[in-house]
Amino acid sequence: MSGRRPGPGEVRLARAWLTRAVEPGRGAVFDLVSEVGPVEAVRALRAGLAGGRATALAEARRRQDRAAEDLAEAHRIGARLVTPEDREWPDQALRAMQVAYDREHGSARSEDGVELTPPLALWVLGEPRLDEAFARAVAVVGSRAATAYGTAVAGRLADGLAGAGWAVVSGGAFGIDAAAHRGALAGGGLTIAIVAGGLRRPYPRSHESLFARIGRDGLIVTEFPPDATPQRHRFLVRNRLVAGLTAGTVVVEAGVRSGALATARQGLRMGRAVMAVPGPVTSHASAGVHLLLRAYPEVVLVTRTVEVVEEVGMLGTDLADRPQAPADPRDRLAPLARQVLDGLPSVGVAAPDRIALACGVPPLEVLRCLPTLELEGFVEATPTGWQLGPAARVRSRR
Amino acid sequence: MSGRRPGPGEVRLARAWLTRAVEPGRGAVFDLVSEVGPVEAVRALRAGLAGGRATALAEARRRQDRAAEDLAEAHRIGARLVTPEDREWPDQALRAMQVAYDREHGSARSEDGVELTPPLALWVLGEPRLDEAFARAVAVVGSRAATAYGTAVAGRLADGLAGAGWAVVSGGAFGIDAAAHRGALAGGGLTIAIVAGGLRRPYPRSHESLFARIGRDGLIVTEFPPDATPQRHRFLVRNRLVAGLTAGTVVVEAGVRSGALATARQGLRMGRAVMAVPGPVTSHASAGVHLLLRAYPEVVLVTRTVEVVEEVGMLGTDLADRPQAPADPRDRLAPLARQVLDGLPSVGVAAPDRIALACGVPPLEVLRCLPTLELEGFVEATPTGWQLGPAARVRSRR
Repeated sequence: MSGRRPGPGEVRLARAWLTRAVEPGRGAVFDLVSEVGPVEAVRALRAGLAGGRATALAEARRRQDRAAEDLAEAHRIGARLVTPEDREWPDQALRAMQVAYDREHGSARSEDGVELTPPLALWVLGEPRLDEAFARAVAVVGSRAATAYGTAVAGRLADGLAGAGWAVVSGGAFGIDAAAHRGALAGGGLTIAIVAGGLRRPYPRSHESLFARIGRDGLIVTEFPPDATPQRHRFLVRNRLVAGLTAGTVVVEAGVRSGALATARQGLRMGRAVMAVPGPVTSHASAGVHLLLRAYPEVVLVTRTVEVVEEVGMLGTDLADRPQAPADPRDRLAPLARQVLDGLPSVGVAAPDRIALACGVPPLEVLRCLPTLELEGFVEATPTGWQLGPAARVRSRR
Repeated sequence: MSGRRPGPGEVRLARAWLTRAVEPGRGAVFDLVSEVGPVEAVRALRAGLAGGRATALAEARRRQDRAAEDLAEAHRIGARLVTPEDREWPDQALRAMQVAYDREHGSARSEDGVELTPPLALWVLGEPRLDEAFARAVAVVGSRAATAYGTAVAGRLADGLAGAGWAVVSGGAFGIDAAAHRGALAGGGLTIAIVAGGLRRPYPRSHESLFARIGRDGLIVTEFPPDATPQRHRFLVRNRLVAGLTAGTVVVEAGVRSGALATARQGLRMGRAVMAVPGPVTSHASAGVHLLLRAYPEVVLVTRTVEVVEEVGMLGTDLADRPQAPADPRDRLAPLARQVLDGLPSVGVAAPDRIALACGVPPLEVLRCLPTLELEGFVEATPTGWQLGPAARVRSRR
């Protein structure tokens, strides 16, 4: 190990090299970098001398060095590499992932084999600083095979979150992801796509114009070098960033095999808020969401933006109201008064003893209730007895 | 108090008298009957000498006596009065209500003012014995203002429950109630309507033919004498029987003011299983269901009959399978093998070192994985390298 402290340029090159040489999310490499620093880690890995699992992981690509080209390429397309040494590194947002990583370290692999390893560096397209963008961010994710219902709900939620000052994070994919990004853009908010391939040509290709908008008004973020292609396992590894960098994840639609469920489970492992929007039980696109709600009591059912904000918001500032019921004036009445009111005929008048007989309330109590009911407009006195008043005619459901 | 033990006819007449003289569900009257027996309780109430709250509750109607006529009327329409002295009295099913009543006794009234007082007697139309009918019964309830989605789901659930040997209990109302009864009848099962008025002409009138079928093949049950009219507060009091006499209650659709939510809350007070079927968050008819799921962690989200049966069924006999995902053969693979598979080109062949480079797995491990992948049909060896095999071409969602 060299005694000299490496310069910032060296560190950046080393981290750029690492993002290509090793698939992200590998604990052994992260540990090595944590222990000896990125420059020394790269030196050891390139020489095949790091020992243990880290060397094996880097073996396939350790003889390649395109770090400088990757940085140049990023510069050419207006992107940058953000590293833990940079001021904008989202330390705060990554803390949950770091804690989960430390806790799970060395324990058995999770179901999907994804370690919650913090990223070594992030390739970023877009102006906002990462730390600021992720300070108040919510993920909205779901199936690519979304329905009109799902895309409408995702779009509306994202629009609402944007309006409430939350950045909307998703994966840039078809279906729910795209609806979430578009909703946030429509709401004039910040949206962030965390993608599983390189920034030169984000996947899927047909979202070219959407990515162009996100890159201009928001952020596109990835752990992969600019020319990386999306591969199946990369989506799973990417998902941990979506769940980890955000205060909470909302799953809008997900089939029972959707990757969005993996994102949700990773969020739970990191102690993040995980929310799910239900749908028709007849829809396959909601089956995974319902599975999630049934399997994990920590997952909160949400139906509206304010309920999402309530879960991720700061205590006491972002609380949802209960949905307002159409007011039924009878609700203000005591049970006994309500019973007396039910004793009045729907048409015509009745004497108090008749009312008592009809409703089963003692006559004395009927006599005590009637004046109050009259004051509130529920009943009216007539020369021959009592009849229903205007307030009683407000219709309501049982 | 008379020292002579009253005969069965006297007891039946006394209980019939009580169902007319006092609105059901009044703890003070139930306590009096529990203490001195129905015959003595009636004697005291008629004389206005029972003292306390019970006398006040009976005051309005204590001078009436139509018990014999009510029993005759019931007989005329093919109905009967079932009392706690009868063999078919559903003791077992009522135990949860009795326990809740004893526990809550004297404590503050619940939000809706309904005490969980066990019934003093039940007017019944239909052949099956009450105790047997309620031995394995589930309530399916919801809004009268149901949507096509809600009625379809309620009907299918009820049909499925009938097929699984469960009686389907509901309130005989429009919307979800009717769909539940019809579904159970369609499934060839037993269905029970617990209604809030008398048996002579169950409410609503337009369900005449439905009630005729239920009375013939199932049961119509009520605490009210044959000519009683349904009154608003009676629905609330009736609801406690729906929730109490069944192993669990499923709310299919409910607006935020639906009486089905009261039934669900009463079920929770009695420690019964309470389940809710979600729906589109854009539907007002599901807003109350979602409110219930958000407010009470004990409420279980259900989507299919087997999930309902799992909640109410006997442990170990009625367990739901997880919804089957369309099988993706890749799921059988270890994460490393999956990653190697992702390294193969979608078209054409590649040498192992090329694959290692593409997927980032060390060449030695690639070489170790390939034969296994070949055995499973994911890859094929060719003279110039490896290519994807038939198993890898099974499409699946991310």
